[in-house]
Amino acid sequence: MRKKTLKIAVIGGGSSYTPELIEGFIKNYSELPVTELVLVDVEEGRSKLETVGRLAERMIEKTGVPIQLSLTLDRRAAIAGADFVATQMRIGLLSARSRDEKIPLRHGLIGQETTGAGGFAKALRTIPVILDICRDMEELAPDAFLVNFTNPAGIVTEAVIKHSKIRTMGLCNLPIGTRMQIAGLYDIDVARVETEMVGINHLNWTTRILIDGEDVTRSFLSKAAGASGLTMKNIPDFGWDDDFLQAVGALPCSYHRYYYMRNTMLEHMQEKFREHGTTRADDVIGVEAELFELYKDPELAVKPPQLEKRGGAYYSEAAVNLIKAIYNNTRNIQTVNVKNNGILPFLPNDASVEINCVIDAQGAHPIQPLAPVTAQMRGLLQVVKAYEELTVKAAVEGDYASALQALAIHPLVGDAALAKKVLDDILLENKEWLPQFPQAEE
Amino acid sequence: MRKKTLKIAVIGGGSSYTPELIEGFIKNYSELPVTELVLVDVEEGRSKLETVGRLAERMIEKTGVPIQLSLTLDRRAAIAGADFVATQMRIGLLSARSRDEKIPLRHGLIGQETTGAGGFAKALRTIPVILDICRDMEELAPDAFLVNFTNPAGIVTEAVIKHSKIRTMGLCNLPIGTRMQIAGLYDIDVARVETEMVGINHLNWTTRILIDGEDVTRSFLSKAAGASGLTMKNIPDFGWDDDFLQAVGALPCSYHRYYYMRNTMLEHMQEKFREHGTTRADDVIGVEAELFELYKDPELAVKPPQLEKRGGAYYSEAAVNLIKAIYNNTRNIQTVNVKNNGILPFLPNDASVEINCVIDAQGAHPIQPLAPVTAQMRGLLQVVKAYEELTVKAAVEGDYASALQALAIHPLVGDAALAKKVLDDILLENKEWLPQFPQAEE
Amino acid sequence: MRKKTLKIAVIGGGSSYTPELIEGFIKNYSELPVTELVLVDVEEGRSKLETVGRLAERMIEKTGVPIQLSLTLDRRAAIAGADFVATQMRIGLLSARSRDEKIPLRHGLIGQETTGAGGFAKALRTIPVILDICRDMEELAPDAFLVNFTNPAGIVTEAVIKHSKIRTMGLCNLPIGTRMQIAGLYDIDVARVETEMVGINHLNWTTRILIDGEDVTRSFLSKAAGASGLTMKNIPDFGWDDDFLQAVGALPCSYHRYYYMRNTMLEHMQEKFREHGTTRADDVIGVEAELFELYKDPELAVKPPQLEKRGGAYYSEAAVNLIKAIYNNTRNIQTVNVKNNGILPFLPNDASVEINCVIDAQGAHPIQPLAPVTAQMRGLLQVVKAYEELTVKAAVEGDYASALQALAIHPLVGDAALAKKVLDDILLENKEWLPQFPQAEE
Amino acid sequence: MRKKTLKIAVIGGGSSYTPELIEGFIKNYSELPVTELVLVDVEEGRSKLETVGRLAERMIEKTGVPIQLSLTLDRRAAIAGADFVATQMRIGLLSARSRDEKIPLRHGLIGQETTGAGGFAKALRTIPVILDICRDMEELAPDAFLVNFTNPAGIVTEAVIKHSKIRTMGLCNLPIGTRMQIAGLYDIDVARVETEMVGINHLNWTTRILIDGEDVTRSFLSKAAGASGLTMKNIPDFGWDDDFLQAVGALPCSYHRYYYMRNTMLEHMQEKFREHGTTRADDVIGVEAELFELYKDPELAVKPPQLEKRGGAYYSEAAVNLIKAIYNNTRNIQTVNVKNNGILPFLPNDASVEINCVIDAQGAHPIQPLAPVTAQMRGLLQVVKAYEELTVKAAVEGDYASALQALAIHPLVGDAALAKKVLDDILLENKEWLPQFPQAEE
Repeated sequence: MRKKTLKIAVIGGGSSYTPELIEGFIKNYSELPVTELVLVDVEEGRSKLETVGRLAERMIEKTGVPIQLSLTLDRRAAIAGADFVATQMRIGLLSARSRDEKIPLRHGLIGQETTGAGGFAKALRTIPVILDICRDMEELAPDAFLVNFTNPAGIVTEAVIKHSKIRTMGLCNLPIGTRMQIAGLYDIDVARVETEMVGINHLNWTTRILIDGEDVTRSFLSKAAGASGLTMKNIPDFGWDDDFLQAVGALPCSYHRYYYMRNTMLEHMQEKFREHGTTRADDVIGVEAELFELYKDPELAVKPPQLEKRGGAYYSEAAVNLIKAIYNNTRNIQTVNVKNNGILPFLPNDASVEINCVIDAQGAHPIQPLAPVTAQMRGLLQVVKAYEELTVKAAVEGDYASALQALAIHPLVGDAALAKKVLDDILLENKEWLPQFPQAEE
Repeated sequence: MRKKTLKIAVIGGGSSYTPELIEGFIKNYSELPVTELVLVDVEEGRSKLETVGRLAERMIEKTGVPIQLSLTLDRRAAIAGADFVATQMRIGLLSARSRDEKIPLRHGLIGQETTGAGGFAKALRTIPVILDICRDMEELAPDAFLVNFTNPAGIVTEAVIKHSKIRTMGLCNLPIGTRMQIAGLYDIDVARVETEMVGINHLNWTTRILIDGEDVTRSFLSKAAGASGLTMKNIPDFGWDDDFLQAVGALPCSYHRYYYMRNTMLEHMQEKFREHGTTRADDVIGVEAELFELYKDPELAVKPPQLEKRGGAYYSEAAVNLIKAIYNNTRNIQTVNVKNNGILPFLPNDASVEINCVIDAQGAHPIQPLAPVTAQMRGLLQVVKAYEELTVKAAVEGDYASALQALAIHPLVGDAALAKKVLDDILLENKEWLPQFPQAEE
Repeated sequence: MRKKTLKIAVIGGGSSYTPELIEGFIKNYSELPVTELVLVDVEEGRSKLETVGRLAERMIEKTGVPIQLSLTLDRRAAIAGADFVATQMRIGLLSARSRDEKIPLRHGLIGQETTGAGGFAKALRTIPVILDICRDMEELAPDAFLVNFTNPAGIVTEAVIKHSKIRTMGLCNLPIGTRMQIAGLYDIDVARVETEMVGINHLNWTTRILIDGEDVTRSFLSKAAGASGLTMKNIPDFGWDDDFLQAVGALPCSYHRYYYMRNTMLEHMQEKFREHGTTRADDVIGVEAELFELYKDPELAVKPPQLEKRGGAYYSEAAVNLIKAIYNNTRNIQTVNVKNNGILPFLPNDASVEINCVIDAQGAHPIQPLAPVTAQMRGLLQVVKAYEELTVKAAVEGDYASALQALAIHPLVGDAALAKKVLDDILLENKEWLPQFPQAEE
Repeated sequence: MRKKTLKIAVIGGGSSYTPELIEGFIKNYSELPVTELVLVDVEEGRSKLETVGRLAERMIEKTGVPIQLSLTLDRRAAIAGADFVATQMRIGLLSARSRDEKIPLRHGLIGQETTGAGGFAKALRTIPVILDICRDMEELAPDAFLVNFTNPAGIVTEAVIKHSKIRTMGLCNLPIGTRMQIAGLYDIDVARVETEMVGINHLNWTTRILIDGEDVTRSFLSKAAGASGLTMKNIPDFGWDDDFLQAVGALPCSYHRYYYMRNTMLEHMQEKFREHGTTRADDVIGVEAELFELYKDPELAVKPPQLEKRGGAYYSEAAVNLIKAIYNNTRNIQTVNVKNNGILPFLPNDASVEINCVIDAQGAHPIQPLAPVTAQMRGLLQVVKAYEELTVKAAVEGDYASALQALAIHPLVGDAALAKKVLDDILLENKEWLPQFPQAEE
């Protein structure tokens, strides 16, 4: 697509992650010459946008790259003429996340911001906004790519696939993080590691691991049993049981702990909640406050190292790699969330899947997996995908019946009476962000 | 297939259910002129076989139908030349069932003889025996139909489909029982009720209900909410929540209570187990003892009414209806377990499914369902079918990895650490019936 | 659906076939108590409608059944409140059929009214009209069944499936005719013969033949080789080669002669055309004229025997059987054209297929075929179905590109240059019935 | 796979193409350091093997690369320990090809060495030999890749996929040739051209054409209409009709002329055959004789320019590119013939397809096509693939029924009576190479 100008709009630009992204654009300027970068946020995020925007300006100025940065609350202006729209917004802010985690916990269920009942609530809030953005794009930037980071990224991407013609890719830092963790276990450079990942967002398996082109999957699994370091920062580092890992024959992703170690994870969360009355969201609120204090320092013109505690490591790298590959028609291989279209024949064609793709100027082209997807993987993917399908329908149509069925079959809920109670709490406590649902009386 | 002779072999002939079957053959003699009926059992069932066999003789003699009855421990002789082989055996007897129910309960899981970890244990014990019977049939009665009643009937049927060329149908009393319950709710004759059922054994939905050919599904669901009487005798009669029933849009089967009402069912079981130290199997052991006392009465020449407490109502009716339709090339519609072959395109082709079929002299021919199978049904069926697929593999190959994965993804287990503990207990406590597995040390 | 009244509208009521249908309704009155029968036709068919309508009146009067007959040119009035709408119209009359046969012949191709380029032309003319009828039905009789006899019945049915919500079944006399021919070969009553037919309209195979419930397919094929009488009246009675029949392993339908005996059939047609300048349509025009002369006789009050020469034997029987089974919720098995929905997994879900179905009050429910569909059948069905898919698109959208591709891949054309010439002739000579296409200049 | 040694065995090493291959290995030595190169042929090709082998030696010697070359008639010794086995043999030599072309022509059909009845005959001769080679590989070089050039490459590859565990890729010069032709039309460097190709060998379409990453497909098609130069050397350069090309929406491959321009191509062949009694094979026999005269010249130590007339341009390039990408784990994109496995969901999973793949050390990984495969392409692919499936079965099992059905449905035959005559001629005239078939009497 090599053109004279390259405009990128970042929705949710006031996020504490933004300095990561800015650093990425600066470092990669020679291959990705961004001419215009617009950070956009909503009225209630104005102050954060300004703080982070000022820091971004200082970072750009310091390095001297000719990126023109602007800050705005006018989303349509930001989108107009963009080549890429990146979405990293959080509807309802961190306080909504806190509720997403606590409602399920109150009912004895895992409370997590991307999966289970917590991720479900986040999807209901996010999908109407993302589809609104798509409608703006269809009008103002119909050829742009939508690169979505907002969680639950798989479900949000599926909503876009089903309800918009905008070209989109859902992006997660987990695939690149997993390669990093594998490289770490071998103490080698990550460039020597290739992986075949298959599944859906936050529920994928690394089915083949290659070092220097040689398949080491089996020996890796022996090495990985019980090992620490095989998880993302935001998920407790419980090691995998050796028998189970050999049985699975692939490396489960970090988030699989919520499924395969459901009881342990639940106890871990409940303990924290019982003892401190808090969840992960509350910790993050604290980290964020500290970060924004740092960002305000007018002397600061680099990404502060404290950002790493925040949890979104490699997000910037994942995003820049993807945009760079599209812009330069690179045809390299990355793991992203795209329309299934039969690449995993046991999931619906219009589902989103997270899979290795060739990235070129036209977008992401899934590669047929070499390693077989086993019955165990297939079964788990199918039931969670059915949950996702029902969740998209519930979010788009405000349909209670779909919402109830979605939660009833989710493996982290698995009981219709409980599903109903949790659902009613979610609808009540989020009603200001759920105009699509008939408004319940308090 | 109308021939001069008609031989039926009943494996597990010493079952307390047998008088039901005998009554069925007697009543239907004009349409199903059985010439030779062989009841076969194993050495440890010899005494029950003789008791029940004597009663059967008296029943036949009293009515004067020319059925030649014989009792034997020689399974191969019984199978040789048979037109139908009916299997209703219970490997490990009721004491094994008692363990199947108690092991999961000890670990805080639902303990049930056909689904979850309990059904899994039963499948491991039963599949090697049923495949042995198939090998005998391939040699001695290759054109016979295998009509399997042994639970878990869906998994057992799938093992036969995958590992034998014998024509088989898995049979359950639930479909006919459901029609009876619907008729009961309307207080009408069951002959006026037609149903479309779809799913797999013990996990199916009645997706269309017709009275006199008219579709009354929606009005039925309103009537059914909270109603009692919509369950099999062996499952507690908890009514369905109205909102949930409307959301599902179909009548879940009795066994769905273990999924949709998981917590309630578990508490119910745990209470009984805590208070009395017993499970359903223990009750059945008592009922059986009483029944065999009755059967011994040399004056008794009819099926005693007490048999109805036993739980297997309509088994005889289901079996005789099926055999009669094949024998007479009737081409009527019955719900049985057969090879999927694409009729439910979201399940593997070689899976067993429970579905409406046309029955003729060649066997059972699935009919394409008219009502859509919703995402919720699909997701649940897919994960449970993946469990079943892994269970068949584990049972046939004695493969620990498949067994562990099967339990880890079953919705009634759903945790790999727990799955491992339960699996190890099952293998240990059943080792005398599981020669296919490497023998664990005690 | 048993109701007090039963209204049937017959579109194309002025057809010479109508006395067949009237006879069928009269004979079956006790099981199918038609209260209102409306024959409707277009202005240019007014005279035929009146002739045939008067005959129908006399037939009804003579037998005394209380069917109320009416004749009309007002299609909407005829449809309003109907329970069944039967379509047997011929857009462009027999003179259009004559052109359909002659255009391909002029270019050295088979000219046939239902398949190849001739059937293609007929589809282009018919589909807009049938969809117009569907729109009337959606408004005026949304619960009625559309029973379509108009050829090419498979393609026309597919258009309705794809572009209307009206419940429809495409009906052909070939399935019942084939059973008659088989019974004839064995000299037995047709009631003893069952068949499994699979494929698409005018391109199906009888894959299993049962007599008294026993599978005699293989022995039948030996008997059938070279036999006469295995074809419909309108297709020359060339016998099947023994080697080829054994290789196929099933009985090809009458129309398969155009594919498997393409050269022989073409020569046969060309000879007639060369010697007499006529095709089958011209013969039919003669037969029709004679029939209408007979129909005018005010003494005639029965279906005249001469109608049998016309070629549509068993149409009435097929139609009445189908309507009767729906009306009475009979649940018997008939071969009709319905939406595929995966029953033949190698064809698109929204394609029409001709297959054995259970017929009940809700419509037709396909039965999974027992006999395998071989690679040979599959390949031929797939390419002809792709042609049909393109033809439906061309007919609905007036799309030249789809039309050109449809003809280019049809096995009876198979050359793009030739396809273009034939297509251009078809569009030109039919332009008065093809408003959907941009009008070519002469 | 980077190892110390790299052994390549070339079966059919005495081919006139071999100097192309030798030149390729020499030029690419730095990236593909072949240590051992074995040319193997059969007894009847001994003299050609020696001539071409001597030339190869002189070529290697002249450039000084340390490739150790050997010539042998011992195929097993050549295969033992090989990393790659390349097959380019011709069973029955060019005289068999001459018969393959003439038999169909005698019956009024297209006679071509890779498609239609000619390609069918070649497949029957070749498949038993290739499977024999596979059995040797399974024993002597189980991890080697089989790179097959022997035509019909798609059918031969499918036979290997279905009947051997050897990893294989079928390779054709058409994909690279097509990119060259496109570059030629634009007069630009081929490196700037990317293509998406989809289909099966010798029946694929270029569905997307990109120049510098930009999609120019539509404008290319306008440019391509009627253009010359869009064909392989061995196929007459008839241009594509503009209307048809726009309708197809993609560039048909060179061999599509046999389908879309069937009549023109047939006339062209018949004219040559009528006037000169010869076919393309006869021309090639002449070219070959000249080439071998040249090869004998002891002064010659380069590939002579006259080789280009032979027709196999880019074969060497295609082969070396593929082997190089595997050896170096390059992960670039090439179009090869591989197992379908669902990448084209409308073709059987175990079919071979010709499609864009990522090539790495593990082999070829198909990429999901972006451009839709239209109904027209699908229909044609499905019927030809059904022909191929039947041909593989006929070739492996010597099954007359499959052979007859294969030819009967092939679009270039399309008549069962004709198919039988052609088949009987093929079996008779090739009987010395068809031991798998029951031997016909002359």
